[in-house]
Amino acid sequence: MENISEGRSWINICIPEITPPSLKNNTADTDRLIKGIKKSIDSENVSVDLSLIKKLPHLLRQYNYAVKAGGYEDEGIWNLIDVFPSDQDDRFYGLAVDLGSTTVVGRLIDLNKKSIVDEMHFNNPQIAIGSDILTRIHYANSKEGGLEELQNLVMSTINRELLKITEKHAISSRYIVGMTIAGNTAMTHFFLGLTPYWICREPYIPVVNKPPVIRAGEIGLGINRNAPVFVFPNIGSYFGGDLIAGILASQITHEKEPCFLVDVGTNAEVVIGNSEWLMACAGAAGPALEGGVASMGMMAGPGVIDKVKIDPDTLKIDVSTISGDPPVGICGSGLIDLVAQLFLAGMIDIRGKFVPERCGDRLVEQDGIMCLIIVPAEESGTGRPLTLSQPDIDALIRSKGAMYTILTTISNTVGISMNEIKKFFVAGTFGSYINPRSAIILGMLPDIPIEKFVSLGNTSLKGAQMVLLSADAKQETEKIRDQIAYLELNVNQEFMNLFSAAKFIPHTDRALFPSVPIVSTANNT
Amino acid sequence: MENISEGRSWINICIPEITPPSLKNNTADTDRLIKGIKKSIDSENVSVDLSLIKKLPHLLRQYNYAVKAGGYEDEGIWNLIDVFPSDQDDRFYGLAVDLGSTTVVGRLIDLNKKSIVDEMHFNNPQIAIGSDILTRIHYANSKEGGLEELQNLVMSTINRELLKITEKHAISSRYIVGMTIAGNTAMTHFFLGLTPYWICREPYIPVVNKPPVIRAGEIGLGINRNAPVFVFPNIGSYFGGDLIAGILASQITHEKEPCFLVDVGTNAEVVIGNSEWLMACAGAAGPALEGGVASMGMMAGPGVIDKVKIDPDTLKIDVSTISGDPPVGICGSGLIDLVAQLFLAGMIDIRGKFVPERCGDRLVEQDGIMCLIIVPAEESGTGRPLTLSQPDIDALIRSKGAMYTILTTISNTVGISMNEIKKFFVAGTFGSYINPRSAIILGMLPDIPIEKFVSLGNTSLKGAQMVLLSADAKQETEKIRDQIAYLELNVNQEFMNLFSAAKFIPHTDRALFPSVPIVSTANNT
Repeated sequence: MENISEGRSWINICIPEITPPSLKNNTADTDRLIKGIKKSIDSENVSVDLSLIKKLPHLLRQYNYAVKAGGYEDEGIWNLIDVFPSDQDDRFYGLAVDLGSTTVVGRLIDLNKKSIVDEMHFNNPQIAIGSDILTRIHYANSKEGGLEELQNLVMSTINRELLKITEKHAISSRYIVGMTIAGNTAMTHFFLGLTPYWICREPYIPVVNKPPVIRAGEIGLGINRNAPVFVFPNIGSYFGGDLIAGILASQITHEKEPCFLVDVGTNAEVVIGNSEWLMACAGAAGPALEGGVASMGMMAGPGVIDKVKIDPDTLKIDVSTISGDPPVGICGSGLIDLVAQLFLAGMIDIRGKFVPERCGDRLVEQDGIMCLIIVPAEESGTGRPLTLSQPDIDALIRSKGAMYTILTTISNTVGISMNEIKKFFVAGTFGSYINPRSAIILGMLPDIPIEKFVSLGNTSLKGAQMVLLSADAKQETEKIRDQIAYLELNVNQEFMNLFSAAKFIPHTDRALFPSVPIVSTANNT
Repeated sequence: MENISEGRSWINICIPEITPPSLKNNTADTDRLIKGIKKSIDSENVSVDLSLIKKLPHLLRQYNYAVKAGGYEDEGIWNLIDVFPSDQDDRFYGLAVDLGSTTVVGRLIDLNKKSIVDEMHFNNPQIAIGSDILTRIHYANSKEGGLEELQNLVMSTINRELLKITEKHAISSRYIVGMTIAGNTAMTHFFLGLTPYWICREPYIPVVNKPPVIRAGEIGLGINRNAPVFVFPNIGSYFGGDLIAGILASQITHEKEPCFLVDVGTNAEVVIGNSEWLMACAGAAGPALEGGVASMGMMAGPGVIDKVKIDPDTLKIDVSTISGDPPVGICGSGLIDLVAQLFLAGMIDIRGKFVPERCGDRLVEQDGIMCLIIVPAEESGTGRPLTLSQPDIDALIRSKGAMYTILTTISNTVGISMNEIKKFFVAGTFGSYINPRSAIILGMLPDIPIEKFVSLGNTSLKGAQMVLLSADAKQETEKIRDQIAYLELNVNQEFMNLFSAAKFIPHTDRALFPSVPIVSTANNT
């Protein structure tokens, strides 16, 4: 684990100086504890909930007034979480979660050692209601108790997965004293039990942008019931806490020169900025980039094609798959590789249309649609050929065009040219697997030196982890949220013009992509 | 109602400046409201609970974003209570309660007009468990669910009485946006559902001295569920929030010269101080002062003797009763009047013993105990004679002796003589009815000019009312609590010597009571 926790934590354990009660000193239990905490942490404002006050007399006596006090700082107040016996090692934990609409990843962190104890990784159980967010929003709004059901699906699965981890490591859930969670705006609403009704209706108003720190017990989370739950803030319906976590993790705000941060999913979310300013926008880039649309598209997994190489002379297509199994499908990064290679091999033209002369008998017609056989039946893991259709390519080109148009629009807005970009961070699973060179060839990413591209992995989880461990990171999150300017993408004539120009490989303006070779598509003109 | 609400209130209603959502301004509902509140109240720290956040989207749209926001300040944070439509008059209410172990009195206050809407007045339903506090504490500790039962008894009765008032005045309970409550330490514990187990066991440790401001919903109170409930702090097991409320109401802390504040119940609670210092102590003065012990003693009510006059020549006993009905018993203040008059008439001596020569045939023996017939059977409202026994007088003299000893002890401790006392505040029902002159004659209160005695009535309720309406009063409460020095009464030899000397009428040291005449008890020596 990287060193992501410099400085002090906002969740901390102190050892209050407590004098046991006597006739000479008969202060009440709660006030006695608070006084000891104030001395120990040098804070003036210590708060204890009624639910905890009820338990204190018993706990303090059980531990003979020798206790550790867990608490968290928020809005200048140190809030007690619980008291524990002082005569044991510091075994306190926190949970950092990336709440994706498809996948949920959580990490149990040892707050003292600042190390990962274990990780949970599961499909979002809300998929049973609907794989896309709009279906879930509709369900929450139209079905009585639907919102609670969606909330409970996630909560109970987190609790179940957590139980596996705590049993495995013999950890008491009472000792899990904090949680941070980053998700998009709709997922955050489901998690908190907030109606998503207005976020998908003009003018797209979330219930809350900056949720308060809540207590785990308020939402039925199976950790210490008074543990703080920090939910990443969002900018709006289309720019969620996962992105804020991503900005935090990218450390773009520590850069002097402008950088890009791109997270590609069903939406393309783009941030440009440096330590002084930040501008963000989000737009539909289409699921084609996730491999979700192509007939052979699928999420990364065993047998899924993630890399493609085509010999320009022999036109032989070499695919490599995840874990080396026989190919069964293709993921987003594999698809980008494939189409870039098809272009370089002259098998598709600048509009992305198949060039029959170059494709040869690999090009077949199925139900009136032209398809290219990428992997013949005898080599595939499914027993059937894996094919790429003309509509698959068209969808990818629309997506990549949208992506590039968004990048151009935001950089034009702030008056920064692509050459001025110092680093180009790519977040998410997509960012981990994508070959930036292929993305440049397609004209999806700008033609800048390849070494400027930095793949960040799961920035949402990283950001959550950072906030779990550091008060500075928590504060920075709020600074990011307040500082960020959100660019509403108006699909106006100018946008459409840019989009039209970007729907070619790599672009109608070849001067923008000097490094991409001009490919001959034989004598096909 | 006196002007008890100068200055600003900590429970207040503001009209936030809200721009309704649009595509150009798509901030979330909660953040939009918070921004408007911050503008309107000029505060940086506004907090909204998750339970309220859930309701906001609906409420804001229901009221077309034209709302009033109710909130309260605590620890530097303005906490939202609820939002209301802006197009109506300011009809917001608060409840101030004096939570006595015997009687509960509550007042519904119009927060805008600062006037009393109505009052509730009922016997504490916990009497069904036990009339004295120790029985209730024992019940809470020994019976499964006993504490919850005690809490619920009070809560449900307050809710029921409140419902009568709100129905009568057509007030929605949602518009009752705050509550203050003053009670002794045990009553406060029951009210909050805190175990009283340790407050009656050495070293007498309450669960909490200074309870946090909680939300009505946390304890099942039938007002707005997010309304703040301010529970008066206590100093210890024997010095409760009712006394702190009393000190606040007495305004003793605004006096330059030292004053006494005395509240007499089963315990005598005494405070001495001024604007610069405060010392308090409490001690058992005995229920005799409440009229609870004498065979004909009872609480004030119709037919209860509250004033007595004895003609020193004819020795005729004239009694006057509350509401003028035929006498049925005597209350504390009547008893003090009676015994003082008996002394002045020479019918009892300085030890409080009956003087047979002066009592004549009114003095009878019943079951071996000497009794004086105060009201003969034919004049009484019960058909039986009302009598005062020698043990009744003995008990009163012990109580008055204890009272005076406590006053002496605390004034000696701070080095203030009785003559330096500027005002002598007497709180409670007792204070409302007592004839200070009679108390001086008995040597219960010091022999200072009669005009220095000020009867304050229900100071506990008054204090609660003050805090409901004023942020300054709320703050002063905490100052009082922090400032007060508590004198633990050690029943040592010195105390016993003082007590012995005080067990005479008015005192063994006659120089302390120059205004009390020396009475001849005929030739009985």
